[in-house]
Amino acid sequence: MQQFLEDAKNANKIISTLSGDIKNKVLNKMANALVENKDYIISQNLKDIEAGQRAQLSSALMDRLLLSDERIQSMATAIREIASLKDPVGRVLDGWVTEIGLNIQKTSIPIGVIGIIYESRPNVTSDTAALCFKSGNVCVLKGGKEAEFSNKAIAKVLREVLISNNLPVNAISLLPDSSREGVANLIKQDKYVDLIIPRGGEALIKFVSENATVPVVKHDKGLCHTYIDKGANPQMAIDISINAKCQRPGVCNAMETLLIHKDIASKILPPLYEAFIEENTQLLGCDKTREFLDIKKATEDDFNTEYLENILSIKTVNNIDEAIEHIAKFGSGHSECIISENYGAVNEFLDKVDAACVYANASTRFTDGGAFGFGAEVGISTNKLHARGPMGINDLTTYKFKIFGQGQIR
Amino acid sequence: MQQFLEDAKNANKIISTLSGDIKNKVLNKMANALVENKDYIISQNLKDIEAGQRAQLSSALMDRLLLSDERIQSMATAIREIASLKDPVGRVLDGWVTEIGLNIQKTSIPIGVIGIIYESRPNVTSDTAALCFKSGNVCVLKGGKEAEFSNKAIAKVLREVLISNNLPVNAISLLPDSSREGVANLIKQDKYVDLIIPRGGEALIKFVSENATVPVVKHDKGLCHTYIDKGANPQMAIDISINAKCQRPGVCNAMETLLIHKDIASKILPPLYEAFIEENTQLLGCDKTREFLDIKKATEDDFNTEYLENILSIKTVNNIDEAIEHIAKFGSGHSECIISENYGAVNEFLDKVDAACVYANASTRFTDGGAFGFGAEVGISTNKLHARGPMGINDLTTYKFKIFGQGQIR
Repeated sequence: MQQFLEDAKNANKIISTLSGDIKNKVLNKMANALVENKDYIISQNLKDIEAGQRAQLSSALMDRLLLSDERIQSMATAIREIASLKDPVGRVLDGWVTEIGLNIQKTSIPIGVIGIIYESRPNVTSDTAALCFKSGNVCVLKGGKEAEFSNKAIAKVLREVLISNNLPVNAISLLPDSSREGVANLIKQDKYVDLIIPRGGEALIKFVSENATVPVVKHDKGLCHTYIDKGANPQMAIDISINAKCQRPGVCNAMETLLIHKDIASKILPPLYEAFIEENTQLLGCDKTREFLDIKKATEDDFNTEYLENILSIKTVNNIDEAIEHIAKFGSGHSECIISENYGAVNEFLDKVDAACVYANASTRFTDGGAFGFGAEVGISTNKLHARGPMGINDLTTYKFKIFGQGQIR
Repeated sequence: MQQFLEDAKNANKIISTLSGDIKNKVLNKMANALVENKDYIISQNLKDIEAGQRAQLSSALMDRLLLSDERIQSMATAIREIASLKDPVGRVLDGWVTEIGLNIQKTSIPIGVIGIIYESRPNVTSDTAALCFKSGNVCVLKGGKEAEFSNKAIAKVLREVLISNNLPVNAISLLPDSSREGVANLIKQDKYVDLIIPRGGEALIKFVSENATVPVVKHDKGLCHTYIDKGANPQMAIDISINAKCQRPGVCNAMETLLIHKDIASKILPPLYEAFIEENTQLLGCDKTREFLDIKKATEDDFNTEYLENILSIKTVNNIDEAIEHIAKFGSGHSECIISENYGAVNEFLDKVDAACVYANASTRFTDGGAFGFGAEVGISTNKLHARGPMGINDLTTYKFKIFGQGQIR
């Protein structure tokens, strides 16, 4: 492990100072290499598929695991898109000349060595490797066990491109010991590793947060609310609510709790109920809500639950303050929305609610790098520091101050 | 503790949304209150002074502890200067309209509740409280035991201003349990505390880094180098080296190791030696350096030591690459300097050396908020993430995305 991390650190010295031009050429070669080696990758993927069948993985999981010609083409396209992004390294973020003539330049630089722990699809391996390479970072990847052969094959193809371009092969590597102990070891290596990004279930995030000495950018849960203000446009309120809950219930930016102002509840709740029934969504409500709808009671536990499925808790509130308080108590700081045509209510909500993304009159489902126009998905941070909310490739950089003097002393 | 932190969190809701105007008025009242209550503060300070005398604290420490009319005036002036800074909250950091018309605003907001652990002078209590208040943050302060009565008196005066302005008194508070256990407890309260800033000795920093689950911005050691390139202006090389080492050896941005190119060593080392002797500085050198100077040998341990006193290690290197490698191995990522009139060498050094501040032809002693023109001293971060190097008041903010829609759904 020590030697492995020293190799990563050494690779960092070369990778961090590559010009944008070279990085882009290499990325495009990586994209080509994935396509050229697709038969090899698919043959290795087959081993994961067979192991998955033996382990009787769910069909959803099997679908995420499966690689095809088309999916490998998409992976290549994603890398080419990353190549086409503006270089995140070397941006002058700020600059000034001090009174005694020191010329100070605050310049973006790569973070260094980034450990990324993920569970999902094999394409995350190539996406993440490309994002780190483009931003001048070395990546240590730890993918899910169920995709082991696929991830190894993808990393092998990418690493061969590094070798044939005389670049350090360890700029992209898989964590050699992918056990829980291996991860526990990695997240304490602050001498070598500059950042850990865990993407996965609550147990993984908790384990990493509690045990890491390396800084962590978390991708934690999203317990998102939509608040229908008394000043809401009723049809918009229904459309956004249905979209936020039902368009893709299993993701972190989907709505889990609907809050509604008492003055508009009688008008909106009945048609909203009809619309949710049509979407096969189960509704739970507070006592006040149940005066309008014949649904089961929502408990404190329900308001505290990220369902990630077709279940919705509803609470009728007396005023906007009660909505904001409910969100402060139960929200996870991810994405929160107000639906209102009232100028003051919108401003109050957007100012007072503490979350990465606060929406007026749009679905919380827009919280992701693609919808924000970042062009590549690094993830969605639930940290308050370093990066918050949808992460663009610029969030894979830090900065240094360059100071140009002419002999100044104190 | 739980109730204390809940009070802090609740205070945060009010403080975070105050207008700049109100914050500045209250800060100026705090400055006035310090001056009006100077007799009370000095009487409490006397208790610390007496305890310090009984404990036979060093005269340097006693001097740092002592408050006088003049020093309280300075504390008030510092608060007025903080009031005069531009509001760090509500800056629009970025903004754009997406293709489907979502108007996205990335806006700076307060971090929340910040725990600050420090050892030194009582004026840090008022400075820090004012910086946090100005940036809309709640602070939980844990000062040194030797300044206990002084800190309590200062906090009491500031808190009375909060009360008389109908603001939550818990926006500024001292950690009730100031024992090691109290600190250990505080740094694990991620539910309530958003950031810990430890300022102090290595043991404190290590303890906090290893045990905190709350994010930490460290103020760690500075093992700073100055590299005299073969293209250096000799007189400038000597002036900067003497300044970087001797002007104030006990601080983190002072030089600890001098690196010198072999081609210029014979010309510069003898006069440099004379100049350092005049400053009562002890020199240690590598074998190559000792060919020019009659000094003791510098061991690997010496190159790894932050002396913080009048001792300097010197290494003669074959080329700039060896200097950069030495810094990568022994540097602490704080402040590093090249002295050279050679354009290529300066650029190579500034690009390749990974440190918060990289200097060309200026003393590393300039690494601080004041010299950078930030106007108020939050500290010097040795983190790579969130804030790096001298921290201005803007570094006490994070951001949220405000998204203004017109009914958009996915």
